[in-house]
Amino acid sequence: MLGSHLDSVPFGGRFDGALGVLAALEVARSLNDRGILTRRPIEVVNWTNEEGPRFPPAMLGSGVFCGKYGRDWAYARRDGEGKRFGEELERIGYRGPVPCRPRPLGGYLELHIEQGPVLESEGVQVGAVEGIVGIVWLRVTMKGERDHAGPTPMSMRRDALVGAARAIAAIREIPGKLHPDMVATVGEMSVSPNAINVIPDRAAFSVDFRHSDEGLMRRAREMVMETVEDAARGEKLEVSVEEVGGSTALPFHPEAVGAVAGACREAGYTFRRMWSAAGHDARYTAELGPAAMIFIPCTGGKSHTEIEDASWEDAARGCDVLARALITLAGRAG
Amino acid sequence: MLGSHLDSVPFGGRFDGALGVLAALEVARSLNDRGILTRRPIEVVNWTNEEGPRFPPAMLGSGVFCGKYGRDWAYARRDGEGKRFGEELERIGYRGPVPCRPRPLGGYLELHIEQGPVLESEGVQVGAVEGIVGIVWLRVTMKGERDHAGPTPMSMRRDALVGAARAIAAIREIPGKLHPDMVATVGEMSVSPNAINVIPDRAAFSVDFRHSDEGLMRRAREMVMETVEDAARGEKLEVSVEEVGGSTALPFHPEAVGAVAGACREAGYTFRRMWSAAGHDARYTAELGPAAMIFIPCTGGKSHTEIEDASWEDAARGCDVLARALITLAGRAG
Repeated sequence: MLGSHLDSVPFGGRFDGALGVLAALEVARSLNDRGILTRRPIEVVNWTNEEGPRFPPAMLGSGVFCGKYGRDWAYARRDGEGKRFGEELERIGYRGPVPCRPRPLGGYLELHIEQGPVLESEGVQVGAVEGIVGIVWLRVTMKGERDHAGPTPMSMRRDALVGAARAIAAIREIPGKLHPDMVATVGEMSVSPNAINVIPDRAAFSVDFRHSDEGLMRRAREMVMETVEDAARGEKLEVSVEEVGGSTALPFHPEAVGAVAGACREAGYTFRRMWSAAGHDARYTAELGPAAMIFIPCTGGKSHTEIEDASWEDAARGCDVLARALITLAGRAG
Repeated sequence: MLGSHLDSVPFGGRFDGALGVLAALEVARSLNDRGILTRRPIEVVNWTNEEGPRFPPAMLGSGVFCGKYGRDWAYARRDGEGKRFGEELERIGYRGPVPCRPRPLGGYLELHIEQGPVLESEGVQVGAVEGIVGIVWLRVTMKGERDHAGPTPMSMRRDALVGAARAIAAIREIPGKLHPDMVATVGEMSVSPNAINVIPDRAAFSVDFRHSDEGLMRRAREMVMETVEDAARGEKLEVSVEEVGGSTALPFHPEAVGAVAGACREAGYTFRRMWSAAGHDARYTAELGPAAMIFIPCTGGKSHTEIEDASWEDAARGCDVLARALITLAGRAG
């Protein structure tokens, strides 16, 4: 099975988010053109609603196919206007009659832009994706004391924003102590009462950290907790930490990853093994059979923006690797 | 002249913000009761619109009296519903016929709660206020690069919130390097795009710092600039700093401050000289004659909140000091 999805990103003259599905069709056509037969049948799939911004959750189509969600539950998801996912599929003619039930797959390959700057900056042509990293999402809240910014001496303050700032600065340093591929991000923050002349009594922020090694992820979580508690102690703050999401690391199947690496070698492309730090449909399909992904460089490492782009040359190399790895996994019959 | 204003705070069973005006009336009555005559006439004033939340700017009444603002300009100020200050004064019967023009004052005294925790925590009964600190208000904006929180390695990030957090943590330490009475506060902050899985490309925050010594204030401003630039450099951020308000330090007249200190000594109250770190009407009236303020402790150092409070005993001591200092400044005639 060759998977893909249409990103919710405009085409902009290139294939952008449609890279995977166009590549899969191109590979299927090429096999036919050259009369190449495989022992296992090949299916091309374009997953519905991978991004999920209109109908959360993300990866809804592959989630149903792989048994993570029930079909009728998925159909009942509503958008912001109250419209149902199933009815909207019906309206646009995309609610097909074929049953959608989990079944074993001989293999699954998904071609995607990297969505990061590593391949481009290292000048490497292809990424052989070894798995999808684990993600932990935390929400940290610090509570201090609201006071007048003028007459309250520095020694008597319990400034929630100072505590949060110290924690955020220290969280930035945690990945460097654990692994070069670990990332930690504070993306969201709110301060109360948020007035220029009032010492903040409340600061809340998110923490997102990601890595492929669950042991290192546990250690990172402990370090975040220690960091937050140290920062809170300095300003005598109350602190609470809540887990608000995440997923465990998912290693892809060595056979499928090996097929991708072998395809790169065969074709003479430079490649590196790497983990995906974003979620993909392959996360679910990996439960049904050996799955892997192929990354190609994207311009400036940017994705999910109007400037998302990839070169024709990189896309062509991606198609070539997809075709070669597919033949390995499906088995050449003639 | 004995100044006061009614704070925009509910009475709550005590005098709260009305401390000054009630004390001034009590002092005037006591002088009459005891037949004490002064060489200079005594006026009691209850300043309109000192706080200014409905009709900015603050200290509007004393500002007009002292020639800082024109009377008709003040009358034309509008509230959030578009109602004019002058018309609202007329409607409630507070727009009087007496001309309001700057004229020299023999002295000006203003009794106020400290609005901070110093007197209470040091167990001192009265503050002889030597002046109103200088205030600098800055708005710092840091710009980095928006990226996906997953696939962007820590080494390739330009995270605006990390830069801001480092700056905020370091600004907290500046007063301790310069003077025990200096304060610095970051009260307001915004982060963009403010999403859990996106590296922030923009973080903006306010800086409020205050002290009585203009030389130290200049040094503090330089240190804030250095701190912000250091923090921005680490994440390769663009930074801009804008001055958004403030005022220079205003020392009160030694004669008036001396009268307050002398009154404390005469009455046997413990007292300390201190600066006000918040603005007051005395800031303007000090331009018309020797002015000073008297602080009494407030419960928990709190003000501008429903729990603002002061004890009857402290209020009585404040009245006593006000009366004694007044007699010194006005001169006893019999």
